[in-house]
Amino acid sequence: MTQFSDKIKTLKPSTIREILKVTADPTVISFAAGNPAPECFPTQQMEEISKKIFSRMPGAAFQYGISEGYAPLRESVKARMKRYGIGKDFDDCMIVSGGQQGIELSAKVLLNEGDCVICEQPSFIGALNAFRSFNINLVGAPLEQDGVDINALENIIKSNKNVKLLYLIPTFQNPTGRTMSLEKRKAVLELADKYDLIILEDDPYFELRYSGEFVPSIKSMDKNGRVIYCGSFSKIIAPGIRVGYVCCREDIFSKIVVAKQVSDVHTNMFYMIMVNEYLTNYDIDGDIAKTCVIYKEKRDAMAAAIDKFADGKLSYNLPEGGLFLWCELPEGYNGFELCKLAGAKKVAAVPGSSFGVDESQVSPALRLNFSLPSIELINKGIELLSGVVKDFVK
Amino acid sequence: MTQFSDKIKTLKPSTIREILKVTADPTVISFAAGNPAPECFPTQQMEEISKKIFSRMPGAAFQYGISEGYAPLRESVKARMKRYGIGKDFDDCMIVSGGQQGIELSAKVLLNEGDCVICEQPSFIGALNAFRSFNINLVGAPLEQDGVDINALENIIKSNKNVKLLYLIPTFQNPTGRTMSLEKRKAVLELADKYDLIILEDDPYFELRYSGEFVPSIKSMDKNGRVIYCGSFSKIIAPGIRVGYVCCREDIFSKIVVAKQVSDVHTNMFYMIMVNEYLTNYDIDGDIAKTCVIYKEKRDAMAAAIDKFADGKLSYNLPEGGLFLWCELPEGYNGFELCKLAGAKKVAAVPGSSFGVDESQVSPALRLNFSLPSIELINKGIELLSGVVKDFVK
Repeated sequence: MTQFSDKIKTLKPSTIREILKVTADPTVISFAAGNPAPECFPTQQMEEISKKIFSRMPGAAFQYGISEGYAPLRESVKARMKRYGIGKDFDDCMIVSGGQQGIELSAKVLLNEGDCVICEQPSFIGALNAFRSFNINLVGAPLEQDGVDINALENIIKSNKNVKLLYLIPTFQNPTGRTMSLEKRKAVLELADKYDLIILEDDPYFELRYSGEFVPSIKSMDKNGRVIYCGSFSKIIAPGIRVGYVCCREDIFSKIVVAKQVSDVHTNMFYMIMVNEYLTNYDIDGDIAKTCVIYKEKRDAMAAAIDKFADGKLSYNLPEGGLFLWCELPEGYNGFELCKLAGAKKVAAVPGSSFGVDESQVSPALRLNFSLPSIELINKGIELLSGVVKDFVK
Repeated sequence: MTQFSDKIKTLKPSTIREILKVTADPTVISFAAGNPAPECFPTQQMEEISKKIFSRMPGAAFQYGISEGYAPLRESVKARMKRYGIGKDFDDCMIVSGGQQGIELSAKVLLNEGDCVICEQPSFIGALNAFRSFNINLVGAPLEQDGVDINALENIIKSNKNVKLLYLIPTFQNPTGRTMSLEKRKAVLELADKYDLIILEDDPYFELRYSGEFVPSIKSMDKNGRVIYCGSFSKIIAPGIRVGYVCCREDIFSKIVVAKQVSDVHTNMFYMIMVNEYLTNYDIDGDIAKTCVIYKEKRDAMAAAIDKFADGKLSYNLPEGGLFLWCELPEGYNGFELCKLAGAKKVAAVPGSSFGVDESQVSPALRLNFSLPSIELINKGIELLSGVVKDFVK
């Protein structure tokens, strides 16, 4: 009988990824994914670049590379991040196989079993499971409309042993779509200084803003090298290519490079070259602007459909960007039960409880994705879902 | 001051990957890599397939996929492996981001800190570092010409606590090029049964055979699900695409899938589709046969050059396949010192000590790669290296 490691034996697959398997049924309208819209992928541009790579540099695109990533891409990413104030003299930047890998490798180099990681509650399941896979103590700090509750966070830091890491998604948070205020970003950084903590800032959505004003990242205010910044091209180019990046202090950087080396040697060379060409010779900002127009329409369509069909029984705050609308049933109702009923009516959503540190804790919330479905399906799906809600909420 | 995790804080970058950075100097003749020859990459075929993917299924190629990997590729790999007797009813097969990831994820799901892993001595640095990155007890069993010393292996199993895993590269081993005999493969499997151990069989080279006869994998004789089989397309298609596979018992499989999910979500979709098309509609076996002709010529050229130039001061056994020629200086001479002198003469090789469990232990060996350099450079480089050897060995 094989004994699995303590860190893995209780870890379950992500609920969402299990739900996604069910939504392979094409008659299900799915708001469960976190997928970008395929119509927003820069497919034509990538096809052109692909031809260039095959004709000019197939050798490099298919050979082994170094674990830090394709050097010209690292430079392009550094230049791009500089626009947002990210990257100090003490920082370096590496390419990883998607933002998820940046999170997992950061956890691996920093955390011993039993160490404490504090996350927003609710938070991104993929990250929570990455932390759990190192058998650590995961504690959630309540998330308010303008970001994590700072007082509660400080109390949690003080009342737990071996707190090492704060995991935060300050902008268009997954699952809530909320954005942390500038004041709270500063306060979080002060807490990290005060208690000698590292902040893992997960920032895959910030370029998808549809309204409101840009808020600087925590990393851009990081004077003491306390922030590991994880970025991703999944939401602004395409997730299937698995290209992301990590920007952090050099000593942490060099440990993450070693962890990357033993994990998958390096990221897919062809797509590192592809992304570099796209950043260098194409109009990524123009393409993102077009994507934002499409996603804004979808967000607004979803909100309008809820207003129209749900009789006020599903409340939400309009997110200023990202991929998700976080909805809540009236207090006392269970989002998990609702999602089961909705599934039977062929509309899929993810219950709020799935994003909790303790998944068994009842939540009145559900997460709806608006980036993937068409506006037609958004209308049809929200009408269906609202029918279920109205039966459920008496 | 950041405290790194116990598992990572003492881990250093692979010596080889550090050497490779030095060999970026184009005037250095490098036998240090483990790279396949770029002239063997099926570049034209991949270019054709790439066009097809862009015209027929760009959506799927760029969207999120499931962590197990692209389903048609999993089926193609299963069918291909069946030819070699790999894959029983209790097994399943997943796609990973290169063979290295198969090793790292297996280690993660099986090993607690302090558990014991036994490897051949010498062995593949990438795997040894992956094990080290989980803070385990790594013990080497002596490697003979026909594979690991079975008696020594059993003694090591008996004299160490919490032995969980045997890590073996039975065919064209890295770094020695040696192949384990059928008898020893059976004996190793018996030991695994007797002591309730898992065997991690790393088999990236077996299709690159230039002489001698096929020896069945340990996995093909695995009646009790004791073997995790890690395969790779790095040496028979191209390493830059980072596509490999793992075949193992379903309960281990499902844990590795969860670990994969938190590590990088899934492997690059475009290249999973690419590999599947190549396996399905192209002549990979014919292409491998052509690669074998080229590598055999290079192997033989390197051996002939050593015979011609080294005055018998560099001994070797001709490997029947793979990428490496393992050479030894006369006893008492230090391969590491030799490699330093050779580096100064602009010829790079990896000292045998780098492949040891204890890298500080002196070894008279060096590993020479023959797949990457041209025959012209092989001749020139071996002449240079032999000059250094003849000065060094009095």
